[in-house]
Amino acid sequence: MAREVAIGLVQMHSGDDTDANMKKALEGIRECADKGAQIIALPELFRAPYFCQKKDDSFFELAEPIPGVTTDALSNIAREKKTVIITSIFEKAADGKYYNTAVVIDADGSLVGKYRKIHIPDDPEHGYDEGYYFDSGDLGVEVFRTKYAKVAPQICYDQWFPEGARIAGMKGAEILFYPTAIGWPVNQREVWLNKAENTMWKTTQISHGIDNNCFVVAVNRVKLEDTLRFWGSSFISDPFGQVLLEAPTDREVNLVAKCDMGIIARKAADWPFHTDYSKVTDKLK
Amino acid sequence: MAREVAIGLVQMHSGDDTDANMKKALEGIRECADKGAQIIALPELFRAPYFCQKKDDSFFELAEPIPGVTTDALSNIAREKKTVIITSIFEKAADGKYYNTAVVIDADGSLVGKYRKIHIPDDPEHGYDEGYYFDSGDLGVEVFRTKYAKVAPQICYDQWFPEGARIAGMKGAEILFYPTAIGWPVNQREVWLNKAENTMWKTTQISHGIDNNCFVVAVNRVKLEDTLRFWGSSFISDPFGQVLLEAPTDREVNLVAKCDMGIIARKAADWPFHTDYSKVTDKLK
Repeated sequence: MAREVAIGLVQMHSGDDTDANMKKALEGIRECADKGAQIIALPELFRAPYFCQKKDDSFFELAEPIPGVTTDALSNIAREKKTVIITSIFEKAADGKYYNTAVVIDADGSLVGKYRKIHIPDDPEHGYDEGYYFDSGDLGVEVFRTKYAKVAPQICYDQWFPEGARIAGMKGAEILFYPTAIGWPVNQREVWLNKAENTMWKTTQISHGIDNNCFVVAVNRVKLEDTLRFWGSSFISDPFGQVLLEAPTDREVNLVAKCDMGIIARKAADWPFHTDYSKVTDKLK
Repeated sequence: MAREVAIGLVQMHSGDDTDANMKKALEGIRECADKGAQIIALPELFRAPYFCQKKDDSFFELAEPIPGVTTDALSNIAREKKTVIITSIFEKAADGKYYNTAVVIDADGSLVGKYRKIHIPDDPEHGYDEGYYFDSGDLGVEVFRTKYAKVAPQICYDQWFPEGARIAGMKGAEILFYPTAIGWPVNQREVWLNKAENTMWKTTQISHGIDNNCFVVAVNRVKLEDTLRFWGSSFISDPFGQVLLEAPTDREVNLVAKCDMGIIARKAADWPFHTDYSKVTDKLK
């Protein structure tokens, strides 16, 4: 019988009140779980406002160890609802460095995986001044086996780099997760550009799923924060690039899609890109 | 003033008569050039039927040296019309090996570049038995400077592998060209699958242009040959993933689109993925 995995997305706005953000995230998880979701994803750095729009040392106080208060809260609800949870957290590491770190919490509440964002956008002009806050990740790209599927977290800006997805695919990922914080600069008036940015964001991520025979789950913030209007548009696509679910650009939603994992084997039989790849790497230069 | 390059596509059917195919290709080039095209692309192996659907040693007689009769004919019309021409040819190399080789002929008729297809589909079941005919290319991925733009040829199955496009992008390609022979197996009746295959073919190529800040030109065969119904759908996309031109699935056309090369600098300023990439390769593992 085909293995089916129900994936939930919490597309949310995060404000200045970190406790209120946490409360909303837990409500979203609860709603997705009640709709049957087995793996639930939250946006990048959901607990805080997207502070990387400006340089302000006080924001370093938002950083926390992993495990810590946020993972504890997520572990509790994961255990209660028997769901896997994936998101990103502003991590203060033991050595004093700061990372933008994705966590994978299994359905028994255990922390099974951690990925530190590698591609750090260093772009103050457009509101992504992450270079001020985060070191580039030092844990490589990994695939984590959870109760329901083998998952690989990547984070936001990583989505523009096919290399991370390829490594995850070669390590056996069934689902790529991209917790994200991306939006339109509020002063950007060019209609074609706004449309193109949103569309190309979907296109490149969907292609990573095609090229590596994975599902792709992108979960984004939504609504205005300071000078960025986060564009939502969270989605799930399958290994054939079919979009199973797409959230609106302008409001919070908690959505669930059932994913037939059997389609991975079907595509591998028809279109064996992944296995072909390893035969010819010596030719590329 | 913005630099504009007009790109032409000859989306054609190739039959058993190689002279008739050549004649049709030259007519298509002439039509595109008369519409203002400065760079013109033809489908993969346009001179012959897509013989890779079966194993038949007599087809090796179709192979030719480069330069040879086909490049001579293309050089003549390139010189006459002052156009760059890009396509693929069944090459018999000096050492006796056989390759599926893209050629880049400059607007003065000179042969400025050669790329031998690296990713060879070895898939007799679906009609792509190229492993029987071609060695995997030994020339790496290169960018060639022509009169009108810096171009990088890739060929058909290469399109599913972001690695080739990435190398071309890092070497400064402005336009990626994918001469192609892809279609639906004539007996494939699943409507969703036919649609998904065609869509994912476009998606992954468009994403290579997004991720590497290039234009993408895919030029495909069209119509039934033996057991494959080539799906046309030739297209040109820009670095923002916008599709400037798309050909129909079911008939021959010669189309031209004007491409504003200034958009490459515009995107590099807004979304500097390409330059960011080189900073973090040591982190990927």
